[in-house]
Amino acid sequence: MKMSEVLEKAAAARKAALKLATITTEVKNSALLKVASAILENKEALLRANAEDLKAAEGLLKRGRISSPLFQRLKLSEDKLKEIAKMVRSVAELEDPVGRTLYAVELDRGLELYKVSCPIGVIGAIFEARPDVLPQISVLCLKSGNAVVLKGGSEARRSNEAFFNVIKAASEATGIPPGWIQLIEARREVRELLRLDEYIDLLVPRGSKEFVKFIQANTNIPVLGHAEGLCHIYVDADADIEKALKICYDAKVQYPAVCNAVETILVHSRIAEQFLKPLGKLYAEAGVEIRGDERVRKIIPEAKRATEKDWRTEYLDLIISIKVVDSIQEAIDHINTYGSKHTDAIVTENGRNARLFLTEVDSSSVMLNASTRFSDGYRYGLGAEVGISTGKIHARGPVGLEGLTTSKYYLLGDGHVVADYLGPEAKPFTHVPLKKRWSEVEREL
Amino acid sequence: MKMSEVLEKAAAARKAALKLATITTEVKNSALLKVASAILENKEALLRANAEDLKAAEGLLKRGRISSPLFQRLKLSEDKLKEIAKMVRSVAELEDPVGRTLYAVELDRGLELYKVSCPIGVIGAIFEARPDVLPQISVLCLKSGNAVVLKGGSEARRSNEAFFNVIKAASEATGIPPGWIQLIEARREVRELLRLDEYIDLLVPRGSKEFVKFIQANTNIPVLGHAEGLCHIYVDADADIEKALKICYDAKVQYPAVCNAVETILVHSRIAEQFLKPLGKLYAEAGVEIRGDERVRKIIPEAKRATEKDWRTEYLDLIISIKVVDSIQEAIDHINTYGSKHTDAIVTENGRNARLFLTEVDSSSVMLNASTRFSDGYRYGLGAEVGISTGKIHARGPVGLEGLTTSKYYLLGDGHVVADYLGPEAKPFTHVPLKKRWSEVEREL
Repeated sequence: MKMSEVLEKAAAARKAALKLATITTEVKNSALLKVASAILENKEALLRANAEDLKAAEGLLKRGRISSPLFQRLKLSEDKLKEIAKMVRSVAELEDPVGRTLYAVELDRGLELYKVSCPIGVIGAIFEARPDVLPQISVLCLKSGNAVVLKGGSEARRSNEAFFNVIKAASEATGIPPGWIQLIEARREVRELLRLDEYIDLLVPRGSKEFVKFIQANTNIPVLGHAEGLCHIYVDADADIEKALKICYDAKVQYPAVCNAVETILVHSRIAEQFLKPLGKLYAEAGVEIRGDERVRKIIPEAKRATEKDWRTEYLDLIISIKVVDSIQEAIDHINTYGSKHTDAIVTENGRNARLFLTEVDSSSVMLNASTRFSDGYRYGLGAEVGISTGKIHARGPVGLEGLTTSKYYLLGDGHVVADYLGPEAKPFTHVPLKKRWSEVEREL
Repeated sequence: MKMSEVLEKAAAARKAALKLATITTEVKNSALLKVASAILENKEALLRANAEDLKAAEGLLKRGRISSPLFQRLKLSEDKLKEIAKMVRSVAELEDPVGRTLYAVELDRGLELYKVSCPIGVIGAIFEARPDVLPQISVLCLKSGNAVVLKGGSEARRSNEAFFNVIKAASEATGIPPGWIQLIEARREVRELLRLDEYIDLLVPRGSKEFVKFIQANTNIPVLGHAEGLCHIYVDADADIEKALKICYDAKVQYPAVCNAVETILVHSRIAEQFLKPLGKLYAEAGVEIRGDERVRKIIPEAKRATEKDWRTEYLDLIISIKVVDSIQEAIDHINTYGSKHTDAIVTENGRNARLFLTEVDSSSVMLNASTRFSDGYRYGLGAEVGISTGKIHARGPVGLEGLTTSKYYLLGDGHVVADYLGPEAKPFTHVPLKKRWSEVEREL
């Protein structure tokens, strides 16, 4: 595929996006339900395409070119397709993030201002070789009225193509503007996509830390997401030891391969011995490797020596680094220096310390007496998760459908001009808040 | 100044920002009032520094190195200082944008989630040679709890330095963390600043189109603002001619040098003659040069011939381009092709056309029967204007103090772990909305 072909697809998506912004909630939801049924109706074709991907991947696996977990994630099954269809129907049931009135004020009699949520435009989604990601990100874009240009991991090429065809056909047959969903396939085209800042409004990358960092470093397009989750738990001098043990166990052992698992525990010197002895036992039983500083190794002799590198490492595995600190400020400074601004927690019964930690730790989620593993769109009640953002601009933390919207100001007048509000005889602005919602106003136009 | 010195200032700002995020509204407001008084108390020093800038600029003006409007904007006076002090006091009176509860939900009994507005961190402000910009952007940053690294136009160097010293001394004497405000001076240091994405969270550039485009193209740091305002008015076939004339006059003549002035008028062919004859007269009297397409020139013979380039030109002057279109869709397509996504208006009495235009025009402000000149933070009732954003990410349209904030999730538990909410005996999440505000919760910690 030449540069021009990627550009053509992005331009077609932009054109469709302008129309998609005008589609009603009802049409979007019926398209989503149609997509859900179509996935089940086309299960043979989808599983056949996936079987071809698996066959090709088997060769790569044998030659050590792909890992066994990647190969496992590549697999679709009838149950998996049912789950995906269920997910699509659940997105249909979510509230429409578009058309919400965010601000409404009368500037003067007959001059009304409304700030209303609307789609962003064109989303570029670049993701790893997991066939379930394409339907997920596509339907989130559809629900939020955005066009999408998709690029999936090449090992899932045939599965992605099959999902793309099913979703495109079902949605466009139900009134969604043709061209709203686009698929690009060759790995080298990603670099071209990253340059299309005139056509792509937001990139949503999913995948490894290296992959996301590569995207962030090589584009002027805003990127929503996170490269890593280097999460901390600080066990304060005034911690309840039982709570601290429960939380540190959950945050490391329950699912170590995810971004909201804990990687470093900081413990106050005053409570270190009392806390680390039982923690060492718990972790030993769970097969967790401990890397500690000198003071930790005096309490847990089996602990390996932690180096500076450990404070910067997201293990995503049954490994934990532990450091003893002499003050809460030392803990806060450590987190703001080595952390990834994702999720960090304090365990304490001291309100003053809790307040200090919550305010000064510069991360997207900061927790008191709870496991970092709660940091997640579904658990946060957002309905669906677009991603977890460690950036501070646009969206931060677990991001729901709202993260795929922006806003637009509508000003309705009756021949109003600015000259009347200037100079010595200027009319004053009233700036009275309005109770009317934009949806009512729009109907009455 | 070496690279390391710019970096040192940015690093100092980041350090101060973490502390500034914890400062109460009361302390911030009393610091602002102190800054306002200090500006008046130090008027001699400020005017003296400004006089030196003016003296140096006079030479540049004579040699044609700077323009006369730039020279005019450079001037401070006692009245101007009073206005600036008043502006600072008005910012003290604005609601604190930090600490607002944006979302509050119970995840389960004793496990409460709060999404709360908070400062972004460090703002990089780069602006033209106008001595009033430095106090304005500094106090908006202070009010929103952000540290700021300032770089002003070099012709105002001494005035900027004087303002910087006054603001720094007054604020830091009133409890604002030292180092929150930083000034860099040499023009070449801007390039260095643009690379400091680890220290600067958001850039707010002000100045010419070329200047803002240069910033946008040369940094990975998010940029809030706009490079140009190529605003349109579409006069529909169902327009009220009187309203259309009034609005088109106001939007061009009242203040042509600003970003929300109109640059292109599109008029439906069915109403073209009826509307353009009187408009031509009005504009002729006001000294507006008209550039029109063939059909416009048949109705207004004095009009010059418009070329493709005119549809892309922000005149910022008493010049207007006019085009006759045969449908509202042609007008919408023209605007989405040539516009700058800033502000565009339709004049019509037809509700269906109004709805179509408002929804399909992809601009930050879209207006019905009102002048594009209303697009402004003060007129929109936002209290203060940080800038007008034509980007869609983070903030769009006139941006108030809210645009200098992000959000943070606080999760408060009592030893809660994720394992209890997984598996066959999983506890369900309650996801009950909470009425409590974060400010109350924080006090009770």
